[in-house]
Amino acid sequence: MTDARLSFDQEDIHNALENISASLEAGNLQQALTTLLELHPADRADTFTDLNSTKQKQLLRSLDIPATADLLEELEDQEASKIAATLTGERLAEVLDEMEPDEAADILGDLPRSQALQALQEMEEAEDVIPLLHYGDETAGGLMTTSFIALKPEQTTTEAIDYLRAIAPDEETPYYLYVTNDERHLLGIVSLRNLVVSQPDVRVEALMDTNTYYTTTLTDQEDAARLMVRYDLAALPVIDESGTLSGVITYDDLMDVLEDEATEDIYRLSNVADADLTIESPISLSIRRRLPWLYLNALTAFLASWVISRFEGIIAQVAVLAAFQSVVAGLGGNTATQSLAIIVRAIALGEVDDNRNVHTVLKEALTGLLQGLAVGFAAGLGVFLWQGNIYMGLILMFSLIGNMLLAGLAGALIPLGLHALDLDPALASSVLVTAITDIVGFALFLGLAAAFLPYLI
Amino acid sequence: MTDARLSFDQEDIHNALENISASLEAGNLQQALTTLLELHPADRADTFTDLNSTKQKQLLRSLDIPATADLLEELEDQEASKIAATLTGERLAEVLDEMEPDEAADILGDLPRSQALQALQEMEEAEDVIPLLHYGDETAGGLMTTSFIALKPEQTTTEAIDYLRAIAPDEETPYYLYVTNDERHLLGIVSLRNLVVSQPDVRVEALMDTNTYYTTTLTDQEDAARLMVRYDLAALPVIDESGTLSGVITYDDLMDVLEDEATEDIYRLSNVADADLTIESPISLSIRRRLPWLYLNALTAFLASWVISRFEGIIAQVAVLAAFQSVVAGLGGNTATQSLAIIVRAIALGEVDDNRNVHTVLKEALTGLLQGLAVGFAAGLGVFLWQGNIYMGLILMFSLIGNMLLAGLAGALIPLGLHALDLDPALASSVLVTAITDIVGFALFLGLAAAFLPYLI
Repeated sequence: MTDARLSFDQEDIHNALENISASLEAGNLQQALTTLLELHPADRADTFTDLNSTKQKQLLRSLDIPATADLLEELEDQEASKIAATLTGERLAEVLDEMEPDEAADILGDLPRSQALQALQEMEEAEDVIPLLHYGDETAGGLMTTSFIALKPEQTTTEAIDYLRAIAPDEETPYYLYVTNDERHLLGIVSLRNLVVSQPDVRVEALMDTNTYYTTTLTDQEDAARLMVRYDLAALPVIDESGTLSGVITYDDLMDVLEDEATEDIYRLSNVADADLTIESPISLSIRRRLPWLYLNALTAFLASWVISRFEGIIAQVAVLAAFQSVVAGLGGNTATQSLAIIVRAIALGEVDDNRNVHTVLKEALTGLLQGLAVGFAAGLGVFLWQGNIYMGLILMFSLIGNMLLAGLAGALIPLGLHALDLDPALASSVLVTAITDIVGFALFLGLAAAFLPYLI
Repeated sequence: MTDARLSFDQEDIHNALENISASLEAGNLQQALTTLLELHPADRADTFTDLNSTKQKQLLRSLDIPATADLLEELEDQEASKIAATLTGERLAEVLDEMEPDEAADILGDLPRSQALQALQEMEEAEDVIPLLHYGDETAGGLMTTSFIALKPEQTTTEAIDYLRAIAPDEETPYYLYVTNDERHLLGIVSLRNLVVSQPDVRVEALMDTNTYYTTTLTDQEDAARLMVRYDLAALPVIDESGTLSGVITYDDLMDVLEDEATEDIYRLSNVADADLTIESPISLSIRRRLPWLYLNALTAFLASWVISRFEGIIAQVAVLAAFQSVVAGLGGNTATQSLAIIVRAIALGEVDDNRNVHTVLKEALTGLLQGLAVGFAAGLGVFLWQGNIYMGLILMFSLIGNMLLAGLAGALIPLGLHALDLDPALASSVLVTAITDIVGFALFLGLAAAFLPYLI
C-alpha cells in the first residue's frame, strides 16, 4: 500500500504550494497542474485557496471540467462562488452539471442573479438543482443531495443489482437505496448489504426496512443532524410537503453541520456573533462582527459603573472596598459561565427534557449556593487575615454566597428561557448573565458595606 | 410507511417511561417489556436509565441475551458498566459475546478486575475483545471495532459476494471491505458498491483502491477523527505497530468523538474541567469538578485585588475611579475571550498553520488595538460627558486601548503557545488570559490615574 496516507500534514500543503508557485513562475504550467492534481481534493482546495489570484486563473484555465467541479465542491462556499463567477457561460454550466446537485445549488444561490439564470438555462441537469434552490441554507432541504437511488418494491434483488450496474452510481452515492411507489412516496429503505447478501429472486419490498427515520425539507438542519447522531444513521431521507422523497442527507454533510454547530456555540458563548469567522478572516470583517458585542459589553459595564458610583462616598471612606468588589463580580461571572456552558451544550445535544427544567434550574442554583459557601468562606477568611477586620471578611463572604447563588440561577434560567422562546440560548446568554452577576455583585458587596460601615472604618 | 418516525421527541420517552412504571407497579411485566422493546435502542437506553434500580432489575431479569447486549451498547459507559456488574458470570459472558467488540471492551475495562477476567475466560469470542483492552480510551485503538470484513486480493467479485452471503454480516459492519495479504497487512479497500457494480469475474485486487488513508492504534482519537472529517471518510482502517490491520473506526464512533471534542472545548473555555459532566450529573460530582477552577479564579482575583489595594490612597481621593476600573478589566477580558474562541476552535479543527502563527498573533493584537481605539474613544467620551473631566475620559480611553491590545495579543499567544507545547489550548487559557487582562487593566487605569492625579481632583 505504497500510496496510502497516514495522516494529514500542513507541511504537505506547504510544499505543494511552493512547488506550484515555483513551477508557474518558471513558466512550467504542466508541472504545476500535475502537483495540484496529485493532491487529495480537500488538500487541493486548501492549496488553491492559498495561491494569489493570478496564479489561480492560470491554473483554472487549464483544468478540465471534472477537475474544476471537484475543486469547487471542496472550496469554502464564498471562495467557490468567487471562482465560479469568473467562469464563462457554457463552461460554468458544464462544471455545475458535473457537480453534486447540492453543491451546485449552493454556488448558484451565491452567484449574481443573471449569471445564475443563464447557467441554469444552459445546464443539462438543471432539474436536479432547481428544487434545491428554494430551500434555505439552514434547512434539511438546503443540506440534502437529490442524487440518490430509488428502487421499485416489485423489483427483485437481481433486477436491482443489474439496475445498479447499468447506472454505475458514483462514489458519493450512499450505502442505502430508497424504495418508492409510483407517486415517489418513500416506502422503505434497503441497504446495499441486504441486497447483496439476500437470495437472488427476493422482491425488494420483502427486504426493505419500513421502520425508518426521515425528515422534511423545511426542518432545521440541526434537528435533522441531531436525529442522525441519536440513531447512528449514515443517511437520512428527506420528504417534501407533498410527501415525495426529495433527497437524502449523507453523513459527510452531517459532519459539517456538527462542526458548524459546535463552532457557533463556542463563538456565541464568547461573544463572537458570526460562526463564519476564522483565523483567516480579514481584520475588517472580524472587527465588524466582533465590535458590536464589545460596545454592548461596554454599555452593561457602564451600568455596573453607575451602581458603583452610587457608593462613592463609602468607597472614599474605605478605599479597600474597591479592591474586593471585583472578586465578588468576577466569581459570580465565572460560576454563571460554568452553568451556562453545561446548559447550552445540553440544549445543543438535545438532552434537555422540558419536564425537568425546574429541577435543572434549582440544581444549578443549589450548586451555585454550595460553591458560594465554599469559596465565600475561604475568601472571607483570607480577607480577614489580610485586613484584620472580621466584618470585611463576613461582608465579602455573604456577598459571594449571594452572588454565586444568583449566578447558578441565572446561568441556568436564562439559556433555558431563551430556548423556550425558540431563541438561540447561546446568543445573548453570556452578555446578559455576566451583566447581572456584575451589577448584583457590586450592589450586594457595596450595599452590605454601606449597612455595616461603622464596623469597617 | 406507517412505522416511519419523523423526529425525536422527549415526550415519547416520557410516555414510555410512565407506561413501563405503571405496568411494573400493576405487576404486568410482559406489558412493560413490550413497551420497552418497541422503542428504538437509543430511546430504550434513555428510558431504562430513567427508571429506578428496582424496576431496572425487574426488566433486566426478563430481557434475553441480544436485547441485553443492545441495551448495554446504547447506555452511557458508566451506566452500562454498573448494569453489567450486576449480571452473573455466564450470562455476562454471553451478553459480552453478543456485543460489538469495542463496546464489550469498554465495559470489561470498567468492571472489577476479577469479574472481567472471569467473563473473558467464559466468553467464546474473547479473542476479538482482548486486543482492544490494551488501548487507551482516547486512542484510535480504543475507538475502533475489530469486526470488519477482510478479503484476499486473488478473490473474484463473485467469490467475494458469495463469501459475504455466507457470513451474513450484521448491520453494524461498514460499507467498506478490506483487502489484506497473508500477514494481514492492508493492501487496499473495496467499497461494497464497487464490488456490486463490477463484472462478476474481476479479481478484488483489480478493484481495490490503494490510495487510501489509515491510522495507527496509538494515534489520538481526535487526530483520527480529524482525518475522517477532512477527507469525508465513512470508515478509517487502523493498523497496529507490526503493520497488521487491527480494526476500523466507523462514522458512528466518529460522530461521538466530534461531539465529545466540542463539549470538551466549550467546557474548558468556561472553566468546567470535566467533559463528562452533564445536566444530569449529581451535584456532588459537579461541584468536585467545578469548584477547583473557582478557587483558582479566586486566587487570581485576589492578585488583582492586591494590585488595586496598592492604589488605595488614590482611590480614597478620587473614589469614582473604583467605578471605571472594572470597565477596563471587563472589556479586556471580553476582547481576549473573542480571540481565544477563534484560536481554540481553529486548533481543534486543524486549521492552524504553524508557519503563520506570528501572523495570526499580530493580527489578533491589531484587531484588539483597533477595537480598543473604537471602544476607548466612545467610553472616554461617555465618561467625559458624565463626569465633566476630560482627563478622566483620556485616562479611560488610553487604558482601554492598552488593555484591549494586550487582550488580543494574549488571547492568541497563550492558546497557540500551549498548543506548541502539546498542551490543550483550551485548558488553562481562559483563567490565564482573564487574569492578565484583569491585573493589567487595573494597573494601567489606576497607574495612569496616579500619574495624572492633580488633574482628577
